[in-house]
Amino acid sequence: VLSGGGHGVILGVGDDAALVATGPGATVLTADLLVEGVHFEMDTTSPRDLGHKAVAVNVSDVAAMGGSPRYGLVSLVLTRHVDLAWVMELFGGMRAAADGYALSLVGGDLSRGERVVLAVTVVGEVWERGAVLRSGARPGDRIVVTGSLGGAAGGLLLSQCSPAVVARASHAGWGHELLVALARPEARVGEGQTLAQAGATAMLDLSDGLTKDLARICAESGVGARIRLDAVPAAAELAELARALPGQDPLALALSGGEDYELLATLPPDAVEPAAASLRERFGCALTEIGEIVDGSGMVSVASDGSERALRPAGWDHFA
Amino acid sequence: VLSGGGHGVILGVGDDAALVATGPGATVLTADLLVEGVHFEMDTTSPRDLGHKAVAVNVSDVAAMGGSPRYGLVSLVLTRHVDLAWVMELFGGMRAAADGYALSLVGGDLSRGERVVLAVTVVGEVWERGAVLRSGARPGDRIVVTGSLGGAAGGLLLSQCSPAVVARASHAGWGHELLVALARPEARVGEGQTLAQAGATAMLDLSDGLTKDLARICAESGVGARIRLDAVPAAAELAELARALPGQDPLALALSGGEDYELLATLPPDAVEPAAASLRERFGCALTEIGEIVDGSGMVSVASDGSERALRPAGWDHFA
Repeated sequence: VLSGGGHGVILGVGDDAALVATGPGATVLTADLLVEGVHFEMDTTSPRDLGHKAVAVNVSDVAAMGGSPRYGLVSLVLTRHVDLAWVMELFGGMRAAADGYALSLVGGDLSRGERVVLAVTVVGEVWERGAVLRSGARPGDRIVVTGSLGGAAGGLLLSQCSPAVVARASHAGWGHELLVALARPEARVGEGQTLAQAGATAMLDLSDGLTKDLARICAESGVGARIRLDAVPAAAELAELARALPGQDPLALALSGGEDYELLATLPPDAVEPAAASLRERFGCALTEIGEIVDGSGMVSVASDGSERALRPAGWDHFA
Repeated sequence: VLSGGGHGVILGVGDDAALVATGPGATVLTADLLVEGVHFEMDTTSPRDLGHKAVAVNVSDVAAMGGSPRYGLVSLVLTRHVDLAWVMELFGGMRAAADGYALSLVGGDLSRGERVVLAVTVVGEVWERGAVLRSGARPGDRIVVTGSLGGAAGGLLLSQCSPAVVARASHAGWGHELLVALARPEARVGEGQTLAQAGATAMLDLSDGLTKDLARICAESGVGARIRLDAVPAAAELAELARALPGQDPLALALSGGEDYELLATLPPDAVEPAAASLRERFGCALTEIGEIVDGSGMVSVASDGSERALRPAGWDHFA
């Protein structure tokens, strides 16, 4: 079922291990789990989306280093309740995503068990001195983010509404983008490489929410950050969602919602405009400057009236 | 908890992904799952043994290619019932095994879930033309196996006996080796490299039992095999086990028992003696010639009286 071939694949599935060629740069290694009952539910998740997501979230970690994904290993725990059609759809989603990211799926393992678990490992390549870590942000750097934020969190909220609410949203012409953001996140591979080449000093992919992930860059780099709240690019449909679900705030979702897999990076001031132009032209992807790195260790939000407040790392933790 | 350092580790745990150096040869990739309720039970498995085994079975796949393990990724699903001491012991077992195999644990993922799952990936290196596949066996090659066989299967049988039987065995001075074979299998890394250098034409590690795994070499290589039953090196303590458990046969266990992680290889006839001498001298490891590769596609067993019978792939399948 896995694609044993592909550029650089010397030997794919079927022997004790796969054999692949790696380039002269450094090798990037990352692994992510998707667990039934924690990251997804069998009755509400399409296996094709799930396969896509399992690949995309791993590729996103490679993208966040400025690297290129090359090879993937998929280990799968299946239950007695899973039928062959479900597995074929899952692998279909994985293979389509892998093809899109030029990733060769070369191996893995299979077991039965009590809950479905997907454990994916991705091996990538990066020019060693081109790898962008979380630890390089310097005071004066601008903080930038790709795309828009909070879409996946909005999609999760919408998916938990009654079918009537979802249908009403659909008839009113919104909701689809939020549900897609949740179900089929895309890794920003080309964007990550472009940001690395543009001189990004720190970078990560937003999996746990902006404030929580920015706090990681601050901690690793030994710096603080100021975020201009009116610059944070909340996903467009969050406005409609907030009207439909009183109490929900687009900005709060954009600040703390997880699973967007957009890239958060820091750039020297004069690198922002060229990088934004390059991302727009090459990938049709927005790059938004949302604040700057400062001395110290705290995060501060600046409202449109100039008032400042401490910004706490909020977000969610799979283990909480 | 993971060891972020080690030779070749540019960046270990803590960023989006690990960065490692790989050599000029080919890269070996392998992944294996250990699932609660399928591969182990929480109440009968020591977490230290489990950690050891999760690393060893992956390293064994690299060894079976003639490669060197370099880097490991550990993804772990933990339940609410697991306490910190258990996790520390598990990682202690993993780290000790990794140190023994010169493997650097550089990353992974963690999730809660309903059942404990260990998903380990190992990245290794091999000289590309030195990699030993399953597909290279040729008629006339001798079939060899390291160590002894059936020990893990015997350990499983013994572990399923009443405590009184185990205690009686212990007092009689046997059983320990079988239980150790099951709980703490060792990967034959140096032995695999030595066999590769000696000219092994095909090789794999015995995880599903001799007949089943030999059938894989036959299928992949397009050959048949003749096995001399009196040459098969059954684990010594299986004789005592068979006396204690009527109906159990040491030879049957050696032919079909899984999880021994010994190496099964094919060698040109004149390479067997030098390879055996080298394994004995360098690793204190026996290498036993148990038969030869023949034209055709079937497997035949030859008894001590010269009588021949078809040998069927028996063994066990985690998915059955």
